[in-house]
Amino acid sequence: MAYVTWSLDSLEKFCADAFKAFGFDEQGAKLISDVLLTSDLYGIESHGMQRMVRYHKGIAKGQIHVGARPEIAFETPVSAVIDGHSGMGQLIGAFAMEKAIEKAEKSGIGIVTVRNSNHYGIAGYYAQMAAKRGLIGFSCTNSEAIMVPTFARKAMIGSNPIAVAMPADPHPFFFDASTTVVTRGKLEMYNKTGKPLPDGWALDENGAPCDEAPRVLSNIVGKKGGGIVPLGGSGETLGSHKGYGWGMVAEIFSSILSLGDTSDKCCTFPDKTGICHGFAAMNPAIFGDADAIRKHFSEYLQRLRDAPKAVGHDRIYTHGEKEVEAAADRRKNGVPVNDGTMLELLDLCKYLGLDFASYFPGYVPPEKRTGFTGNY
Amino acid sequence: MAYVTWSLDSLEKFCADAFKAFGFDEQGAKLISDVLLTSDLYGIESHGMQRMVRYHKGIAKGQIHVGARPEIAFETPVSAVIDGHSGMGQLIGAFAMEKAIEKAEKSGIGIVTVRNSNHYGIAGYYAQMAAKRGLIGFSCTNSEAIMVPTFARKAMIGSNPIAVAMPADPHPFFFDASTTVVTRGKLEMYNKTGKPLPDGWALDENGAPCDEAPRVLSNIVGKKGGGIVPLGGSGETLGSHKGYGWGMVAEIFSSILSLGDTSDKCCTFPDKTGICHGFAAMNPAIFGDADAIRKHFSEYLQRLRDAPKAVGHDRIYTHGEKEVEAAADRRKNGVPVNDGTMLELLDLCKYLGLDFASYFPGYVPPEKRTGFTGNY
Repeated sequence: MAYVTWSLDSLEKFCADAFKAFGFDEQGAKLISDVLLTSDLYGIESHGMQRMVRYHKGIAKGQIHVGARPEIAFETPVSAVIDGHSGMGQLIGAFAMEKAIEKAEKSGIGIVTVRNSNHYGIAGYYAQMAAKRGLIGFSCTNSEAIMVPTFARKAMIGSNPIAVAMPADPHPFFFDASTTVVTRGKLEMYNKTGKPLPDGWALDENGAPCDEAPRVLSNIVGKKGGGIVPLGGSGETLGSHKGYGWGMVAEIFSSILSLGDTSDKCCTFPDKTGICHGFAAMNPAIFGDADAIRKHFSEYLQRLRDAPKAVGHDRIYTHGEKEVEAAADRRKNGVPVNDGTMLELLDLCKYLGLDFASYFPGYVPPEKRTGFTGNY
Repeated sequence: MAYVTWSLDSLEKFCADAFKAFGFDEQGAKLISDVLLTSDLYGIESHGMQRMVRYHKGIAKGQIHVGARPEIAFETPVSAVIDGHSGMGQLIGAFAMEKAIEKAEKSGIGIVTVRNSNHYGIAGYYAQMAAKRGLIGFSCTNSEAIMVPTFARKAMIGSNPIAVAMPADPHPFFFDASTTVVTRGKLEMYNKTGKPLPDGWALDENGAPCDEAPRVLSNIVGKKGGGIVPLGGSGETLGSHKGYGWGMVAEIFSSILSLGDTSDKCCTFPDKTGICHGFAAMNPAIFGDADAIRKHFSEYLQRLRDAPKAVGHDRIYTHGEKEVEAAADRRKNGVPVNDGTMLELLDLCKYLGLDFASYFPGYVPPEKRTGFTGNY
């Protein structure tokens, strides 16, 4: 399957128009688009345009309530619990992180837990919101159960990513990682491109290693067993219990503290997914001189980049570097979207009554291409 | 190498007497002993009695200052920075966690970062201090660089464990894990027992896989390169960058926010190790009904334990279960200590002028045993 490259502007316009057509207001549609396209800019294709189809399905099934507004259910000067009322995850996420930032700016720290939300895109988007304001940001979410706990054969925990962002020079430290060995989105990408999964990623319905993305994904949806292993694999020797533990930490800050639906229950309801999130913002100045802390951190990050390289490697990355570079490249050279996703966008345009050709001029679906292969 | 089993009482008495002989007061010696023996009780042999020799060396070399008192260098209602003045890590750790708990009880949350400390034992001890008071506890530490970042061949980050404890029934959730695939203490145990390291744990000075514990440990001390890989291995396919990222999170809360020594500098000084820690305590009541949260969490933990098991396994553990069961067993049946450690304790008694035989009556070193093998 080949890739087609589009300018960020075209994708932004399409994405905002699509969400407006779903019924979101101008500001909401722009925010949702920004979350999705930030992921594509960062090179995290799994959480960008290729997820449009999932939001479409969520809205069509009535699990995502377009008109819902998040509500503060409980609050202290350092904390809040928000009920998302099954609205769009990105809007709830941004609202909750703003609340955490507001509290951090007043009280030094703000922790916000959210119940009854929906998939909110990349966890890192919200952590970055804090870092852009000079704060340390955290964000995590639960999701439909896809992680098989150590010694189990049924998924009971989501991919449960946790993101941390902290101001530094020349760019923020930005760590955003699922607590499974890989995300569900990665499996969706392998599903679209038809490649076998690498060893050590997934288990079939009997708990045996499995390299078939379609089988693992359909087992997850059908709750038939199997799923993705925790970071650290399926046995204790390489630390399966550690990835499983980090998944639990994400669960605590999302579904547990909010009294929301835990991952094993998410996406089993007809009228909601029940997905929960956690957010925190912290002002480094509560530990003294924020500028000195930033300098101290930046110097350490530089020492890491300058450290001796492994044989066969000429570069050590610090977290966030790849994203900064991918974004610069894609802003300049365009954002690659694979044909599988393009066909979904074509369908979506038909459903929403949008003119596909006006956003993606000259696009020819793969089955209609002649005398042309690859590098589309 | 065989194991000898001693009652908890004997080990407590020996350990407290040894630390008193080093110059700590009664209360301090008891606290240090409690941290070490809690580790042995939990079955984490690597961080218990077998570490006595390291504390001995630290005190003898002048890196651990017996008379030092931790000092609060900066403080807000939700945070503190503590300078440990190179005192004993366990005393500084308990002091700092008490401060975090005090702040959490008043303000809902307390975060404390510590510079100029020393190795503090298991991170989880301090997280549990909070859980015993009905709070959610966190603790992390940096350490001598032993983690080789993704694509590097030199250790630049410590084993940097992070621990999280949260009240639940029938016992707290208790997650305590190095961000390397395994701890340095595990390598020390393999060194003592002479076994080869499992695949996927360590790298030699050239960055190649290595199963020789003595070589990896001596390279670390000699700063010759190599070390332990992050949780997730050495390549990105299984998530090396994730373990590396978690190591960085521990670094942020310990050395970065305290303006202390980062792991790449720890243990390179003649008069201190420079090790730094981070602590947090959080009152679940800042999210509403703490009892309801505890019940909600306990029910989820029970569903995890009840989930279908993998082929070949009859039990799914939740974090903390193994420790609770190990402690019950060891309180009843005694604590196993391996011969390598026993010989170190014998040396230590000579150094401190303590009567080894009065603590460990009937112990015969392996080389003097006749007509006897194993199960000592």
